[in-house]
Amino acid sequence: MHKVAVVSYGTSKFSKESKLSLFELACQPCIEILKKNKITKHKIDAVLFSTCSPEQYGSNIICEMLDIHPRISHRIESLCNSGTNAIVSAYSYISSGLCDSVLVVGAEKASTPANRLIWDISRGSFTYPVCWAALFARAHMRKYGTTEEQMAMISVMNHISAEKNPNALFKHKITLTDVMHSRKIVEPIKLLDCSYTCDGSSAVLLLSEHKAKEATDNPVWIKGIGQHTVGASFNKVTHDDLTTNRATRIAAQMAYNMSDFSPHDIDIVELHDAFTILQILAYEDLGFTEKGEGGKFNHQNEIAINPRGGILGCGHPLGATGLAQTAEVAAQLSEKAGKRQIKGCKTGLVHNLAAAGTSATVIILGV
Amino acid sequence: MHKVAVVSYGTSKFSKESKLSLFELACQPCIEILKKNKITKHKIDAVLFSTCSPEQYGSNIICEMLDIHPRISHRIESLCNSGTNAIVSAYSYISSGLCDSVLVVGAEKASTPANRLIWDISRGSFTYPVCWAALFARAHMRKYGTTEEQMAMISVMNHISAEKNPNALFKHKITLTDVMHSRKIVEPIKLLDCSYTCDGSSAVLLLSEHKAKEATDNPVWIKGIGQHTVGASFNKVTHDDLTTNRATRIAAQMAYNMSDFSPHDIDIVELHDAFTILQILAYEDLGFTEKGEGGKFNHQNEIAINPRGGILGCGHPLGATGLAQTAEVAAQLSEKAGKRQIKGCKTGLVHNLAAAGTSATVIILGV
Repeated sequence: MHKVAVVSYGTSKFSKESKLSLFELACQPCIEILKKNKITKHKIDAVLFSTCSPEQYGSNIICEMLDIHPRISHRIESLCNSGTNAIVSAYSYISSGLCDSVLVVGAEKASTPANRLIWDISRGSFTYPVCWAALFARAHMRKYGTTEEQMAMISVMNHISAEKNPNALFKHKITLTDVMHSRKIVEPIKLLDCSYTCDGSSAVLLLSEHKAKEATDNPVWIKGIGQHTVGASFNKVTHDDLTTNRATRIAAQMAYNMSDFSPHDIDIVELHDAFTILQILAYEDLGFTEKGEGGKFNHQNEIAINPRGGILGCGHPLGATGLAQTAEVAAQLSEKAGKRQIKGCKTGLVHNLAAAGTSATVIILGV
Repeated sequence: MHKVAVVSYGTSKFSKESKLSLFELACQPCIEILKKNKITKHKIDAVLFSTCSPEQYGSNIICEMLDIHPRISHRIESLCNSGTNAIVSAYSYISSGLCDSVLVVGAEKASTPANRLIWDISRGSFTYPVCWAALFARAHMRKYGTTEEQMAMISVMNHISAEKNPNALFKHKITLTDVMHSRKIVEPIKLLDCSYTCDGSSAVLLLSEHKAKEATDNPVWIKGIGQHTVGASFNKVTHDDLTTNRATRIAAQMAYNMSDFSPHDIDIVELHDAFTILQILAYEDLGFTEKGEGGKFNHQNEIAINPRGGILGCGHPLGATGLAQTAEVAAQLSEKAGKRQIKGCKTGLVHNLAAAGTSATVIILGV
């Protein structure tokens, strides 16, 4: 099993309505990566395109626009964790020895058809994920006394972090009162408890060990990978317990086992805060705090959480999110996060959910 | 690099209008595979779904319908070679050691939006691949004296083979006269020179070496893989030579190198005959005959060609085609091809094109 490094990354500005097409958006961070690393078109072995857009053969189109001619090229979709699915795929291409270099790019337009869950008719007319986030929130409040203020605080914190991120959709501070008084969407979830589907793109270049050492003095290595899929319906997600995300717990355990790290070793995390309650569940399911204690975990100082602003602060271009999360953790670990740099972080974790919790990816990175 | 085996496979009936939904179609061959191999739901590490359908999170849906809970699950699309892209991805998951078992399933409905190439505006209003096949045909006729009868003969041969395939869309013999007198689509290509986009599905189970040896006495191994992507536009496909498919030539060379086989070692091939001219180009680009001799290669007896009936005889459910090709070669090599069995074949090749030749996959299998 060959080692795999994240060597370069780029993220576009996330916006409500970019003037760029899906493919122009996708190319933007790739151009940055190719220029920065002086990579010629012959040196990319695979291009994987993560998106929920129905556009056909998008990966080929991106190759043409970038004038690169890889061996492998296809589109990957698994709703909101398409991005980390593509990264794990890239990892396996390199780790197996089939490829030395894989460019993974994710892009989405706010008009994506992927923000509703229409297949599972047991959801009735409640096809928007917010309906299901509300059930998680209610259950956690009931069982553990988690409060609306604790959830609201997560939005406040992630918006504060996003202020330092020039690419974030939301760059203004918000107060606890703003969140608490924002429009109710589905009781107890308010507008500012929700992330915003937007336009955006992000790309990551993965290299094999020998190529990474040629390219950079401080590669960031993929140390652990965990993934789990429970199915497609809400019934499968919950397993009679609405206060936990089973896919995350299983994926996290797998990633910790593979990496030989434990939750205590994690210095920095980008976790899937599409709704504030999901951040509380993630604290617990990733093992950072005891079950039921998530609401109080906001005030710890051990782990840097969502330093780029998370999904709440940055916006949620679905197919790009997992890549933007990975790009942030890699930037932090290689001390290239600029104004947002967290000092001395050595080990980071990416947590990316899909489809109201039906699948989860956990990736552990380290220097 | 761990060895990877194709251990089981299944293919649905290909039809013009199946009563099954995309997902019901997709599950059909999977159920067959799971039953045949007595595989429990815990033993599938990844499910990869190959389709050009715009349906979201189809892989999760298939997992739910089959009641399997894999780690990795996503949809892969690269137009007509989505299927072999998914197989190569599965190969790398196993070869890297991330997975022991990957179920790859492809399915398509005839109503797929993927049978036109609308991104490349240099194609003008000629968005159907047949327009481009006509250019290849004209060029080959002009340069090498290939005749319309030689092309027509390919359709006749593949329809004869399809007669022995209970899943093929076309199960009736056709004559040279039938093809020659069929409706002109784009000069010199006639209706019976073209394949037919249809409903269908196919699935393949890949296992790691130790799992394969537990599961079967005669695994078929993936011995060589080659892929190449030139871009997305017609201009990139041709490189000023309309008589060859560059992506195929590069992919084939890569697969031969990896496997240490040469064209002379191949006993059986499923090649991408979406149009009759493509079979002639493939003969040459895969190295079975000299450049320009493809038209005369029909009458050789060394290699069994498209024994299931090829795309012309079977129909072309885009996302399923690469899987159905691989399933056929694996069945032949493990002597389970029933009435179609070619005696004594040890080494087989799958050739799968996409998007009017902008990308190609070549996979070499052996016992």
